[in-house]
Amino acid sequence: MRFQLSPEEIQFIVKPEQIYGNFTGNITQIASLQEAQFGSLSFLANPKYMRSVVTAQASLLLLPKNFDYAPKENQTVFFCENPSVSLSKICQHIAKLNEHLISHEIHSSAIIHPTAKLAQNISIGPYAIIEEHASIGKNTVIGAGVFIGNHSSIGHDVKIFPNVSIMSFSKIGDHVILHSGVTIGSDGFGFEKIDGYHKKIPQIGNVIIEDYVDIGANTTIDRARFASTVIGQGTKIDNLVQIGHNVKIGKNCIIIAQVGIAGSTTIGDNVTIGGQVGIAGHLHIADSTQIGAQSGVTKDTEPHSVLLGSPAAPYKEAVRQFASLAKLPEVLRKFSKTP
Amino acid sequence: MRFQLSPEEIQFIVKPEQIYGNFTGNITQIASLQEAQFGSLSFLANPKYMRSVVTAQASLLLLPKNFDYAPKENQTVFFCENPSVSLSKICQHIAKLNEHLISHEIHSSAIIHPTAKLAQNISIGPYAIIEEHASIGKNTVIGAGVFIGNHSSIGHDVKIFPNVSIMSFSKIGDHVILHSGVTIGSDGFGFEKIDGYHKKIPQIGNVIIEDYVDIGANTTIDRARFASTVIGQGTKIDNLVQIGHNVKIGKNCIIIAQVGIAGSTTIGDNVTIGGQVGIAGHLHIADSTQIGAQSGVTKDTEPHSVLLGSPAAPYKEAVRQFASLAKLPEVLRKFSKTP
Amino acid sequence: MRFQLSPEEIQFIVKPEQIYGNFTGNITQIASLQEAQFGSLSFLANPKYMRSVVTAQASLLLLPKNFDYAPKENQTVFFCENPSVSLSKICQHIAKLNEHLISHEIHSSAIIHPTAKLAQNISIGPYAIIEEHASIGKNTVIGAGVFIGNHSSIGHDVKIFPNVSIMSFSKIGDHVILHSGVTIGSDGFGFEKIDGYHKKIPQIGNVIIEDYVDIGANTTIDRARFASTVIGQGTKIDNLVQIGHNVKIGKNCIIIAQVGIAGSTTIGDNVTIGGQVGIAGHLHIADSTQIGAQSGVTKDTEPHSVLLGSPAAPYKEAVRQFASLAKLPEVLRKFSKTP
Repeated sequence: MRFQLSPEEIQFIVKPEQIYGNFTGNITQIASLQEAQFGSLSFLANPKYMRSVVTAQASLLLLPKNFDYAPKENQTVFFCENPSVSLSKICQHIAKLNEHLISHEIHSSAIIHPTAKLAQNISIGPYAIIEEHASIGKNTVIGAGVFIGNHSSIGHDVKIFPNVSIMSFSKIGDHVILHSGVTIGSDGFGFEKIDGYHKKIPQIGNVIIEDYVDIGANTTIDRARFASTVIGQGTKIDNLVQIGHNVKIGKNCIIIAQVGIAGSTTIGDNVTIGGQVGIAGHLHIADSTQIGAQSGVTKDTEPHSVLLGSPAAPYKEAVRQFASLAKLPEVLRKFSKTP
Repeated sequence: MRFQLSPEEIQFIVKPEQIYGNFTGNITQIASLQEAQFGSLSFLANPKYMRSVVTAQASLLLLPKNFDYAPKENQTVFFCENPSVSLSKICQHIAKLNEHLISHEIHSSAIIHPTAKLAQNISIGPYAIIEEHASIGKNTVIGAGVFIGNHSSIGHDVKIFPNVSIMSFSKIGDHVILHSGVTIGSDGFGFEKIDGYHKKIPQIGNVIIEDYVDIGANTTIDRARFASTVIGQGTKIDNLVQIGHNVKIGKNCIIIAQVGIAGSTTIGDNVTIGGQVGIAGHLHIADSTQIGAQSGVTKDTEPHSVLLGSPAAPYKEAVRQFASLAKLPEVLRKFSKTP
Repeated sequence: MRFQLSPEEIQFIVKPEQIYGNFTGNITQIASLQEAQFGSLSFLANPKYMRSVVTAQASLLLLPKNFDYAPKENQTVFFCENPSVSLSKICQHIAKLNEHLISHEIHSSAIIHPTAKLAQNISIGPYAIIEEHASIGKNTVIGAGVFIGNHSSIGHDVKIFPNVSIMSFSKIGDHVILHSGVTIGSDGFGFEKIDGYHKKIPQIGNVIIEDYVDIGANTTIDRARFASTVIGQGTKIDNLVQIGHNVKIGKNCIIIAQVGIAGSTTIGDNVTIGGQVGIAGHLHIADSTQIGAQSGVTKDTEPHSVLLGSPAAPYKEAVRQFASLAKLPEVLRKFSKTP
C-alpha cells in the first residue's frame, strides 16, 4: 500500500521515549534492516538482526530503548518501549489510510434477489450475486464476483474478498473475513457403497461461521450431512485448509495453511494446528491442544497436550523418536557386527 | 436446508417396523443424540452412542428394532431395520424439497457464444460464460460465474456449482457434480531446462471426466501434455485434490481431500486413497489398492494391496515400523548401556 | 486441442534424419504407443517402452535414429536425433494453431476503471474487473471473471486464465502465466494474542511476481506484512501451493503441487521443491537446494544440498533411515530374545 508520512506524523502515532537524528524527508516505505533505503522506516524486533542496525540505510529507525546506537547523518532514531508494537501501530494507521479505496456503494451490476435483505452502509462489488432470502448486515463489504446462495445470512462488519462462493443456508457471523477463492458450504464427502457403486448421501446441513473468524484464500468448508459444520468464534484459518462435514471447531483456534480435518471431528477452544497437519474423522481434539506441522492425528487428545509426528505422539516422545531414527543406521551397522 | 415434516410424513418415507409414543408436532431439524432438542429427529446408527438415547431430547427417534427403549412423554420412536438407511431416505426427501430453489432458466446475463449447443431444460446462472463450440446436455445446471471454455462438452444431468473454471476442449460426462472453485484443464506442469531456464512444454491435450464423477471444491485437474487426463466413471474426488497431467484414474475410486497425484500415473478401479496422500509420477496403482492417509507412494502396487506410511509400505509392516519406532528411544538407551 | 497435419507438414516441422513407410492420410491425434490408433502420431522417448513399438497401431512413429524397426503397411516412421524434442516442436505447432481462439478484444462487459492504463493489443474477457490505477501491458490476455485490484500492475505478454483474483498493489512482471483460481495478495496470516484473542496484524505489503513466472491453478500467494512477498524471475509454481507472507523466492526455482512455504522464509535460485513439502518460517533455503516430496524442512540449508524426510535430513541419510526403519521390527524381535 502507498503512503507518505513525515517523522512528526509517525512520532504522533508511536510516541517514542527518545528521539535522535535529523532526517527531514517523508517515509514512503517500511522495510527490513537489510533492505531499507532512503525514505524507508525500519526496526529492530528480533535481536538476531542486531548487527544489521549499523549498516541499515533506513531514514527512520525504531529501536528498543537503551539500545546503543547513534544515528547517521540524515537519519532519525525513535527509541521505543517495544518496536514491534510501534510498528503495528504504524501499519494500522497505513491500513486505515487505504480504506477510502473501498467504495460504499452497491454496484449496478450486482444481481440481488428482491427477497434478499440488505442493511445500511453495505458495499457490494460488480458481478456479485445474492440469491433469494439471503441477508447482509450493516457495514459489510462484498467483493466482486462473490456468490451468496439462497437463505444465507451474513453478519455486520464482514469483509468478503472477490470470487468467494457461499452456498445456500450458510450462516456467517459478524466481523468475519473471507479471502478470495474460499468455498463455504460445498457438499460433504459422503457416499454409501451399493452394489459396487458409490451413491451420494444427501448433505442437507449447513455451515455456521461465528463472529471474528478469518478464513484464508482458497480454503474449503463443507456443509454438514445434517445439522451444521461450525467454526467457533475468533478462530483464524489460513489458506488452502480443508474442513470436512460436521466438523465443529471451538473458539480462538489457529489453523495454519493446508491442514485437513476429516468429517465429524470436534476441536476444542484455543487449539493450535500447524501447517499440513491431517486429523482423522470422528475424533475429539481437546482444548488447548497444540499439534506440530505435518503431524497425522489418529486419536483423541487430552487438554493441553502437545503432539508431533505421523502418527502423532506426545511432542517429547516424537522428538526422541526422530533423534533415535537419525542414529539408527549407525546402531544397526554396529549391531550387525556384534557376534 | 429448511423443512417441516410431520411424523406421519416421515412414517410414509421410512416405513418403520414398529412405532411407539405420542409426539404430535412437526420435525424441523435433524440432530445428533447429544444436540437434539424439541422438534428434532435423531437416530442411533453407531452403538458407541447407545447411552445417549436415554438422555436425548429428540421428538422423534429412529432406533434399531429390538433396541430396548420406551419413549418419553411427547416423544415418538420409530424402530427400523436400519436407522442409517432410514435417515438417508429422509435426507433425500428433504434434498428434493429444496430442489425448487434451482431455477430452470438461462439467466439473461449469461454470455453464450452463438456456436454453443444447448439441450433442453438446462439452467445457466448469472454471469456464466460459455465459449464457442461448447455443448451442454439436457437437465444440466450451471452455476453463477462458471466459465466453460471453447470446444468443451458437458453431459446431461450435470451439476456445476458457482465459480468453476473449465478450460477448452474438456469433456465432462453425464451425472457429474463439480463443486465451487474447481479448475478443470489447467496446463500440465511440464518444462524443459534449456540453458538454465525452464521452458514451458506445450500442453495440447485435454481432460476427460466420465459419468457419475463427483469433484470436490477447489480441486484441480490438469490437461494432458497430449491425449487426455482421465477420471473414470463413478470415481469420487474430495476437496483440494491435485491431479497431474496425463493421469488416468479408473472407475469407482475414492480420493480423499488434499491428495496429490503426479503426472502420467495410472490408477486402477476401486482404489481408495486417504487424505493428503502423495503419489509419484509414472506409477501404476493396481485395482482395489487401498492407501492410508498421508502416505507417500513411490512404487507400483499389486491389486488389493493395502499401504501406509511415507515411503509407503504394506499396511502391516508400516504399523510394525511405527510401533518399533515408538519403542526405539528406550531400546537405544538400554543398548548404549550394554557393555 | 484439435488439429489435422499431413506427414509432409510434420516432416517440415521435425526435419527427421530418415523416413520410411507409406502412410498417406492425416494425423489428428498424438498418443502413447499403447493407445495409438489409425491417425495417431506416437513416439519412443523412454527405452522402458521399447517393446511397445512393434505392436503400436500408430500411423506415424517418431523413433530414435538407429532404432531397429521397419514400418508396417500404411505406417510411416521418422527416425530423429531426439524424438522428445521433435514431439515438443509438433506440440508447439499445434498450440499455435489454436491461438486464434484467443480473441484480441476488450469485452464490452469488462468493468475497467477510467484511471486504469491499458496498453495496445490486450484482450480482456467478459466480466473481468480492473480497478482504479491498475495498469496492463501490451499483448496481455486477461480471462473471464478475473479481478485485478486497485494500483496493481500487470506486465506485457502475460496470460491470466479465468477466475483469478489479484488483490490491490500487486506487481506482476512480463510473460507471466497465472492459471484459474489463483489468489495473489490475500492478507498474510499474522495475529497477535491479546487477552486470549487473536488480533489481526495489518498486512500492508504487496506481492511482486517477476518476469517469466508460471503459477498453477488455485495456488495462493499472500501479501507481505510490509514490503513485498517476491517470486523471482523464471520460477515455476504448480497447483495448490501456499506461499506465506514476506517469503522471497529466487530465480528459476521449481515448486511442485501442494507445497507450503511459511512466512518470511527466503529461497535462493534454482531450488527444486517436491510435491507436498512443508518449509517452516524464517528459514533460508540456499541456492540449488533440492527437497524431496513430502519433506518437512525445519532448518536453513547449504547450497546444493539434497534433502528428504520429515524432519528433513540429507538425502543419503534419509534413505538409510528409511531402510533401517524397515528392518527395525525384525531387529527388535531378535534383540528382545538376546539374553
